[in-house]
Amino acid sequence: MKPLKVGLVQQNCIKNPTENIEKSFQRIYQAAAQGAKLVVLPELHSSHYFCQTEDIANFDLAERIPGETTRRFSELAKELGIVLVISLFEKRAAGLYHNTAVVLEKDGSIAGTYRKMHIPDDPGYHEKFYFTQGDLGFNPINTSVGKLGILICWDQWYPEAARMMALAGAEIIIYPTAIGYDPRDEVVEQQRQLSAWMTVQQGHAIANGLPIISVNRVGFEADPSQATPGIDFWGNSFVAGPQGEILGQASAKEEELLSVDIDLNQSEKVRQIWPFFRDRRIDQYQELLKRFRD
Amino acid sequence: MKPLKVGLVQQNCIKNPTENIEKSFQRIYQAAAQGAKLVVLPELHSSHYFCQTEDIANFDLAERIPGETTRRFSELAKELGIVLVISLFEKRAAGLYHNTAVVLEKDGSIAGTYRKMHIPDDPGYHEKFYFTQGDLGFNPINTSVGKLGILICWDQWYPEAARMMALAGAEIIIYPTAIGYDPRDEVVEQQRQLSAWMTVQQGHAIANGLPIISVNRVGFEADPSQATPGIDFWGNSFVAGPQGEILGQASAKEEELLSVDIDLNQSEKVRQIWPFFRDRRIDQYQELLKRFRD
Repeated sequence: MKPLKVGLVQQNCIKNPTENIEKSFQRIYQAAAQGAKLVVLPELHSSHYFCQTEDIANFDLAERIPGETTRRFSELAKELGIVLVISLFEKRAAGLYHNTAVVLEKDGSIAGTYRKMHIPDDPGYHEKFYFTQGDLGFNPINTSVGKLGILICWDQWYPEAARMMALAGAEIIIYPTAIGYDPRDEVVEQQRQLSAWMTVQQGHAIANGLPIISVNRVGFEADPSQATPGIDFWGNSFVAGPQGEILGQASAKEEELLSVDIDLNQSEKVRQIWPFFRDRRIDQYQELLKRFRD
Repeated sequence: MKPLKVGLVQQNCIKNPTENIEKSFQRIYQAAAQGAKLVVLPELHSSHYFCQTEDIANFDLAERIPGETTRRFSELAKELGIVLVISLFEKRAAGLYHNTAVVLEKDGSIAGTYRKMHIPDDPGYHEKFYFTQGDLGFNPINTSVGKLGILICWDQWYPEAARMMALAGAEIIIYPTAIGYDPRDEVVEQQRQLSAWMTVQQGHAIANGLPIISVNRVGFEADPSQATPGIDFWGNSFVAGPQGEILGQASAKEEELLSVDIDLNQSEKVRQIWPFFRDRRIDQYQELLKRFRD
């Protein structure tokens, strides 16, 4: 099996969806020109990160799946013959919305969707207002480039999510993301947060013996309510191999396309020297299904 | 709450238990003199790492709990007024053995025991021959210095183990360990393995918002069977805080006492900015109890 070339589109997002999508298109063309067979965009790449405030006007940004955005990216996937992972604000019904990733096959069909399962709600990240939690489970999506375990942003802090995907045969775990610094935090705290964000995901790669791809947005977005000083999205999109080793990493500040070769043969080799799946104590994990063991 | 000073005894182990225990005693005295209230020894510190081969003669190394070794360390814990985490080859019954950690309270009593739950078996690490898997579950042990989630070596690769301990209220996770390089591996592979070992444990600290302590042995031990070129135990004992940040790290080659202050107040602060426990999808994790989702 030849290495799989993947393209990570690290981009700045503005309010205007048309301009964001045009920018994504340019990077995807660039990725395909470099030979990428799989291209991943960051979380909610069609708009600014509207969850900084709770504003019902933002529900107008939501759209149906399939809809105009999936149609445009489907055509691009087909034109370039690549698999594309895009991220949308999904309108499922009047008043019912999800944070959803869509995987588009190289023939332009929808290979599958994943609705974000773990929904955060913190100052500057009011996602529980906008999105109900996913109900499609943790199921990898079959594609021509492999079985993709798509998870989204906050999911990346949960070992359970990565494990569920790996147990279902995911060959790569993919995290579209929108995460950044609070400008009020000290630099040392900002660095701890960035490092924790990378480390916990590298840990999932190691614990599950598979590569992970994490694609973040980049650049500053103001808080329209001015309740907070906004978010400085920290970039640093990266790919880690099945021992957590960094295979490629983007900058902290710049929009860029990161191209990385992933050797999917490596996962099985690593799982043979570190056969973690063999020894899981599935007879003793029942209380993982509890909120707390008190 | 004042910082908790902990002592990590990174040591080389030889065949003679008496000499190993004397060496451990010296380091524990040193730790107490520096103000440590909690001291942790590496895995199976009373002997060489006998699991390199399958030899029934090694069953003679096993001992009862309580027994002579727990008695000696209990007296030391009482004399110094510290909590001690020791690690033993436990003889539970004729022909029934465990890899067990014992926590000794500062009054010399046994605060609790933990029997290693995940048992490895790899070339050079024939633990399934010697130890049956633990049956005491993943339960933290109450002590005067906090609720300690004791896990052992191979357990450190399992997010489930750390999560089970955190959900039961563990305030610190502690890993006595015996892990090293295969001298046949290339340096780049050795470095990936060391890095993965640290990263996956830092990931558990992050995912669970608590500090972890990992204490490894150090130095080369030959394989008596000469089937392999032996194990070069890689040291690097360390403490990580609740964001995975390294608070202290020992050398790769030397026996040493590593003293580290842990601020237990920090865990709650970190869990408030990163409230992962709030959002776990316990309604969707059932299949974590499966061997594989096929």
